[in-house]
Amino acid sequence: MEQKGVAVVAGVGPGNGAALARRFAGGGYTVALLSRSAQTRGSLEQELRGARGYDCDVGSPESVARTFAAIRSQLGPIEVLLYNAGSGVFGDVESITPEQFESSWRVNTYGALLCSQQVIGPMKAAGAGSIVFIGATASRRGGPRSAAFAPAKAAQRSLAESMARSLWRAGIHVCLIVVDGVVDLERTRAAMRDKPDSFFIKPAAVADTAWMLCRQDASAWSFEVEARPFGETW
Amino acid sequence: MEQKGVAVVAGVGPGNGAALARRFAGGGYTVALLSRSAQTRGSLEQELRGARGYDCDVGSPESVARTFAAIRSQLGPIEVLLYNAGSGVFGDVESITPEQFESSWRVNTYGALLCSQQVIGPMKAAGAGSIVFIGATASRRGGPRSAAFAPAKAAQRSLAESMARSLWRAGIHVCLIVVDGVVDLERTRAAMRDKPDSFFIKPAAVADTAWMLCRQDASAWSFEVEARPFGETW
Amino acid sequence: MEQKGVAVVAGVGPGNGAALARRFAGGGYTVALLSRSAQTRGSLEQELRGARGYDCDVGSPESVARTFAAIRSQLGPIEVLLYNAGSGVFGDVESITPEQFESSWRVNTYGALLCSQQVIGPMKAAGAGSIVFIGATASRRGGPRSAAFAPAKAAQRSLAESMARSLWRAGIHVCLIVVDGVVDLERTRAAMRDKPDSFFIKPAAVADTAWMLCRQDASAWSFEVEARPFGETW
Amino acid sequence: MEQKGVAVVAGVGPGNGAALARRFAGGGYTVALLSRSAQTRGSLEQELRGARGYDCDVGSPESVARTFAAIRSQLGPIEVLLYNAGSGVFGDVESITPEQFESSWRVNTYGALLCSQQVIGPMKAAGAGSIVFIGATASRRGGPRSAAFAPAKAAQRSLAESMARSLWRAGIHVCLIVVDGVVDLERTRAAMRDKPDSFFIKPAAVADTAWMLCRQDASAWSFEVEARPFGETW
Repeated sequence: MEQKGVAVVAGVGPGNGAALARRFAGGGYTVALLSRSAQTRGSLEQELRGARGYDCDVGSPESVARTFAAIRSQLGPIEVLLYNAGSGVFGDVESITPEQFESSWRVNTYGALLCSQQVIGPMKAAGAGSIVFIGATASRRGGPRSAAFAPAKAAQRSLAESMARSLWRAGIHVCLIVVDGVVDLERTRAAMRDKPDSFFIKPAAVADTAWMLCRQDASAWSFEVEARPFGETW
Repeated sequence: MEQKGVAVVAGVGPGNGAALARRFAGGGYTVALLSRSAQTRGSLEQELRGARGYDCDVGSPESVARTFAAIRSQLGPIEVLLYNAGSGVFGDVESITPEQFESSWRVNTYGALLCSQQVIGPMKAAGAGSIVFIGATASRRGGPRSAAFAPAKAAQRSLAESMARSLWRAGIHVCLIVVDGVVDLERTRAAMRDKPDSFFIKPAAVADTAWMLCRQDASAWSFEVEARPFGETW
Repeated sequence: MEQKGVAVVAGVGPGNGAALARRFAGGGYTVALLSRSAQTRGSLEQELRGARGYDCDVGSPESVARTFAAIRSQLGPIEVLLYNAGSGVFGDVESITPEQFESSWRVNTYGALLCSQQVIGPMKAAGAGSIVFIGATASRRGGPRSAAFAPAKAAQRSLAESMARSLWRAGIHVCLIVVDGVVDLERTRAAMRDKPDSFFIKPAAVADTAWMLCRQDASAWSFEVEARPFGETW
Repeated sequence: MEQKGVAVVAGVGPGNGAALARRFAGGGYTVALLSRSAQTRGSLEQELRGARGYDCDVGSPESVARTFAAIRSQLGPIEVLLYNAGSGVFGDVESITPEQFESSWRVNTYGALLCSQQVIGPMKAAGAGSIVFIGATASRRGGPRSAAFAPAKAAQRSLAESMARSLWRAGIHVCLIVVDGVVDLERTRAAMRDKPDSFFIKPAAVADTAWMLCRQDASAWSFEVEARPFGETW
């Protein structure tokens, strides 16, 4: 297998984050695993050859700058940024607090800008690169109970679109995966014991879609792609 | 003319804000004029019978809470909230700073939440009320040069949609006007001297649409309505 | 009241069609009432001063040409076209027949083109006019059981958008009302006896929105406007 | 390479149709090549092992029924339907004729229904299958000069969505590729000699996206995917 460059997974957790890390490590990338604390990364660093974990608060400009500088110097130039950091406070407009609203924006939107700004320059210089945002149903619709989450995800989608419109022509493939359903996790399984297997989105399948997006021919790039279980009502 | 209740215009400037204030004052409302400083409100307070100006930083929870408490005690219960506060830093993802990105969100999105949370409770208790957000082209699309503005407006739209989905049934008409074009202002005229009259959106026409939205029969409410000049290419 | 010109309601039935006719007759227009047979128009012709009924099959080029020629010669130049003809065969892709699919397209889409082509020329010459399409939820989404209806309504919306983009600059306001809910009719009431009043869209309210669209200032036209009951889940 | 079942390409021409046929033949499928006349299929039948050409007018129920019966009996059960038939009459609402409007609908929309209805039953019985529609920019937007084409493509998209919503749960992956740009053909190259290579969409890349859609894990299916050249302004 061809040895590839560095892929950063921002927001490594037990679901899509870990699956993305596995998929890109399996595909030959050296993977940087970003999460708030080492605990969330679990044993991924040991499991994946060449992978390296970094504690990073994606909502902090200083933390992001420090982390990406370390990645560049320790692992090399970044070819792929997979932005999976997310936060899901649910509640309607009356029950959410301004603090929850802001914190949702900080993780889903602001962090997406901060991490992107770290990689755009070098990718432009190289004339190539991929930036994949992991979105959600809420990226497209503001539901009654997603008064904090949906605005943050809609802003992330809008940022992704703005970036795609200015960066594609520089060879940087900015795109968005709309995860439209419930991801298969220990936590979600426990909360929805009555649901069949077919109800859940397999993180490995989301990661396969991200992988495919990063391999598309530049003459036919996709911007926005859903990942939705076949049994979902939509 | 029937005397109506209180309408709040958050974000009074020389364009849509002033026009909204005039339209609702002309329609019998007592209008509260919110802006950062008295200067922006100009002579509107004198011009409009019963209108009253308030210095308010819509991005500050304390300032918003203080202002709305004053309005309630000085003018009475709020029937209409017209959220017109906006900020238009333009630039692509590489040229904007995180500070500009945040400040755009704070005025367009966070302030929309803060002001809304001040009026929802009393409106619910009354079983009636209108909350109108003034959006922009960027509410729907992230253009290459609106990397700061579009995410903030998209988040505002998503918040409005979430609110509509939870508050309509309580009798509160939450809606959004997508201002899709260049508003007719001294500033915009000066910057685009070659454009004909027909190129510009008249603020009074935007205000008419807001007025109409606030008078719609509840059996046929609109959520999202464009205000676009007939000569615009879209 | 100022005497206005001619408004054509294509597709007069007991719901939105009759309400549109009443609203525009009440506003001073001479109204041409188009329906397949005189029976559907009921007593509207007698009820509305100056109104005149026409038998018209909107899906037939000859019938449409004959009808509009008669309107022009008998009532005068047409200022407003309200296209309300619609047909609602429901069923999923397996249960509908190609004939139902075609007939839905013929009434909702093809007829919209035929009637529009009759009025565009004179409206352009006059530099003014309004063409309002009455759409539905299905204009935006293909539901599992609207395999015949949704494609026809989506095509109508796309045609309206294409027309707006080429005709607005000639002074013709092409727009679309998305009726998103169940219209209040004897038939729908009988079928849904358990629903409260607030569940239904009042045809008069839809007609008010059409009226408002035809009076908008050209500097701030709307293209697409919902008519949705406040209690609707969306 | 594993031998797979039958893939039908409806609408084989020198661009996407031929590329789809090559991609799926290369992937192990027996490919049925549908076009109005043998001439359009060129030498594909000879080039692709096991492929077979069929003359078919997709807008005719009889022709479609006859063709699919022949495919089933000669090649076997159909696993994949790639609906690529399309027609691109361009013109604004005033310049197109009703005949062009209808013929565009017949090829892009009606034919999509007719072909789909031929394969759904057996795919449901098998609990698996893929139906991929090849859309266009016009699937999403009605441009001023696509008054005939856009409504047909919007209707096709709406039909695809309706089908996806009812058939996914039966194991049939219905999806849509939005080809947003100019496909690289002898004809388009000749018409746009000044454009660089990067301006054109490579048919092979569109076919790769179709292939990928047909291999997605059912826990994370995509419905709508763009194929857009990186240099495109959108």
